[in-house]
Amino acid sequence: MKKYFVLLIMLFTGSFIFCQTIELPAPQKTGGMPLMETLAKRTTVRSFDTTDISLQQLSDLLWASFGVNRSDGKRTAPSANNKQEIDIYVLLKTGAFVYDAQDNKLTQVATEDLRKAAASQKFAGDAPVQLIFIADLSKSGNGTEEEKLRMANIDCGYVSQNTYLYCTSAGLVTGARASINRDAITAPLKLKPEQKIILAHSVGFQKK
Amino acid sequence: MKKYFVLLIMLFTGSFIFCQTIELPAPQKTGGMPLMETLAKRTTVRSFDTTDISLQQLSDLLWASFGVNRSDGKRTAPSANNKQEIDIYVLLKTGAFVYDAQDNKLTQVATEDLRKAAASQKFAGDAPVQLIFIADLSKSGNGTEEEKLRMANIDCGYVSQNTYLYCTSAGLVTGARASINRDAITAPLKLKPEQKIILAHSVGFQKK
Repeated sequence: MKKYFVLLIMLFTGSFIFCQTIELPAPQKTGGMPLMETLAKRTTVRSFDTTDISLQQLSDLLWASFGVNRSDGKRTAPSANNKQEIDIYVLLKTGAFVYDAQDNKLTQVATEDLRKAAASQKFAGDAPVQLIFIADLSKSGNGTEEEKLRMANIDCGYVSQNTYLYCTSAGLVTGARASINRDAITAPLKLKPEQKIILAHSVGFQKK
Repeated sequence: MKKYFVLLIMLFTGSFIFCQTIELPAPQKTGGMPLMETLAKRTTVRSFDTTDISLQQLSDLLWASFGVNRSDGKRTAPSANNKQEIDIYVLLKTGAFVYDAQDNKLTQVATEDLRKAAASQKFAGDAPVQLIFIADLSKSGNGTEEEKLRMANIDCGYVSQNTYLYCTSAGLVTGARASINRDAITAPLKLKPEQKIILAHSVGFQKK
């Protein structure tokens, strides 16, 4: 009897952890560095401090990267035929989450810290946040898988540039990379075959 | 004798027109709209007035899109392994030019107005400026052509997002499109087989 009770507790706790969502604070849609100065300072950094960024910064980072900027649900980055096929997965110390741009929240998909597993280069796993940009080709328009993938790559570039510029403006640093341990995160992130991992961005403070 | 003289004049004039370069004014690397506001206002527009933009705006547009922002020659947008394989071709009323980011000038490659020829949709040819983003895969790193093309597509997305954000900040409008009359511009732009046309951006003022 006790055994079943423990099992019940485990199941309950497991499903509770699994379903955890993080409600993000409203993103700051004004302010920041003037655009031309931001572009003048844009750079790639590959050395991170382990210091956390704030929840407000995380919300602003995600909104800037691919948030909803209009009442019709359109986004800060364009996408081919407005298919919005790029999802941002967020790897944190506390687990892996997917960014729900429409509801401004993070939905948990894994409870493990996957930052180091995803990083094929050590520096990339040091940062407090690692974003994984994943194209869901089932959302793409018509065409062969290769055609969808090419469009998804352009669309991923849009989002990634926003990530760069937000970090520049906010005093954070980032570096995009296509080198990712895809095999190590495909199962933990519960990806479907149509979901293709395109780019990763470590985000944090520059290592002194 | 007169015939040869005319021929000489034609050759001289032709080569003069062909070699024309436009020295761009120094880009403004400060100012512009605050980044978060720029992102909040980013949108795609597909309706253009025929009014010209100024040479200063053209210089700023090109620098913001993919200009040199550091003394080591690195750019406002990243590229895979810093291969900088994206070239910006600029279609104007006065001909077609390629942006030389290192020397901040436009080098003429054709004397015809190719804006309408390039545009598979009428609206796209109305704008005073049409940018064509072309990946030169001979500059890319290792890999199959398909792999190089995928990376070039990401890199093109980076540049294209900068174009969007500059236009938003400067009160101009733009829309990227992958639908381009590639066959109509490949020969006039004197493209090599390794040069792949990825995206086009009409840029101008919004039609009232």
